[in-house]
Amino acid sequence: MSLTHSCTYRVSYGDTDRMDRVYYANYLVICERARTEFLREAGFPYREIEAGGCFFPVRQCHIRYYGYAVYDDLLTCRSFVSRLRHATLAIDTEIYRPPGEKPIVVASVELAAVDHTGKPILIASDLRNAITPYLREASGG
Amino acid sequence: MSLTHSCTYRVSYGDTDRMDRVYYANYLVICERARTEFLREAGFPYREIEAGGCFFPVRQCHIRYYGYAVYDDLLTCRSFVSRLRHATLAIDTEIYRPPGEKPIVVASVELAAVDHTGKPILIASDLRNAITPYLREASGG
Amino acid sequence: MSLTHSCTYRVSYGDTDRMDRVYYANYLVICERARTEFLREAGFPYREIEAGGCFFPVRQCHIRYYGYAVYDDLLTCRSFVSRLRHATLAIDTEIYRPPGEKPIVVASVELAAVDHTGKPILIASDLRNAITPYLREASGG
Amino acid sequence: MSLTHSCTYRVSYGDTDRMDRVYYANYLVICERARTEFLREAGFPYREIEAGGCFFPVRQCHIRYYGYAVYDDLLTCRSFVSRLRHATLAIDTEIYRPPGEKPIVVASVELAAVDHTGKPILIASDLRNAITPYLREASGG
Repeated sequence: MSLTHSCTYRVSYGDTDRMDRVYYANYLVICERARTEFLREAGFPYREIEAGGCFFPVRQCHIRYYGYAVYDDLLTCRSFVSRLRHATLAIDTEIYRPPGEKPIVVASVELAAVDHTGKPILIASDLRNAITPYLREASGG
Repeated sequence: MSLTHSCTYRVSYGDTDRMDRVYYANYLVICERARTEFLREAGFPYREIEAGGCFFPVRQCHIRYYGYAVYDDLLTCRSFVSRLRHATLAIDTEIYRPPGEKPIVVASVELAAVDHTGKPILIASDLRNAITPYLREASGG
Repeated sequence: MSLTHSCTYRVSYGDTDRMDRVYYANYLVICERARTEFLREAGFPYREIEAGGCFFPVRQCHIRYYGYAVYDDLLTCRSFVSRLRHATLAIDTEIYRPPGEKPIVVASVELAAVDHTGKPILIASDLRNAITPYLREASGG
Repeated sequence: MSLTHSCTYRVSYGDTDRMDRVYYANYLVICERARTEFLREAGFPYREIEAGGCFFPVRQCHIRYYGYAVYDDLLTCRSFVSRLRHATLAIDTEIYRPPGEKPIVVASVELAAVDHTGKPILIASDLRNAITPYLREASGG
């Protein structure tokens, strides 16, 4: 059974738009925070990964909006690894408005490992080992 | 032959992140601007669509990052309708760094027509007619 | 002796700019979060204040930047009331990078109480009483 | 008689908050855009100033909010130099909602010239000469 990282996020006034909801792009900021906390829990703060010469630019995102969040909501973000290859990985984040059982937003973010020149590199084995317990790869994928 | 809407966007300092590139979520803000200008050109400013009681929350986004933009770039955004159904449509935006021939980012944003209570409604026929010339639906859908 | 509200804020990647620092406008977002948490601690969540028909648009800000924060910093925000009048108040927030003893940023934000039409109103006495312990008015002010 | 730089800004959906107004921090982003266009008009694109080794971090901002902007407003930003010293300058930006005669927001942003290490440096004389025509220093200052 794979692990899932969980953290919370408080919606700020600035996150909202005139529809009185979190603006659609801002969920990606929330997901970035969730990924950062996931990597920290896995023992690899992203700041240290970058300091070590490895960067993870985003190659692709797929975001589905099933609902929405409003000002001051305390959201729960559940993140896991949905794909792990030699030089790329995808981290999915499900965002919940408690006590909701279904996520309001699900984002899948594909990242590529590159060096400081932008050249693709292999994901280091210690990082790979640390995040493998969070791998929940779709069987039919 | 279908139409494509074109507009430009100047990258601000605030759009960038510590990688010296436009932060990944901010391309969605640029795409929102491009959609607004596209609808204005089609004769239906989004502000007026909303004033008329129709809203278009985002249901889904797919963003592919092939490159990146930096501070002060004058980007070109090319938008068209990639799907047009009774109650939903998708607007795709390709972002170019001139004189690049290939887009650095391509986003497909699916919108659903709803009334002020959030109930799905049909896209009004005059709006449908106005944007149909911009429809470039994939034959293999 | 007056009270000071304290909370923390983790700097996200999206908060930074190409100087590898938090973008100057984003400190105001951090201060808004700090004010929200301050009011919650005082027993008046801002969401409830607004639900009660009172709004606090910002009338004026003064921000001094003595230093800067970088990605992944865990900042400490210390907020207090620097002015309390019949219909306006100012909340100051000092932002620290631990273990720094001096703030990197100090913002003073003046807010005016208005009703839903924008008309100035008196600050309700229960809210006034709740935040008075946090008042640290400059004697020479 | 001093010069004033003028440019326009279209308010995006993402700029707004649940009050249906531009979020208070976002006016600083608009001002940054206005300063960039001002410097470009003066012959010194900020990107080139930085490429030449001079940076202008913000030291202080003072923002007064007299009104507000809403979604899709086409704002006019009028910028000028309000102070010019050896190593610092202040650029003020007035934001108007046409056809308003009074600004809705006025921001004064003080910048300090530093080199890439953060050490204060003199403002280069060619830049100083280029922006001096835009100087409108308060006589009583």
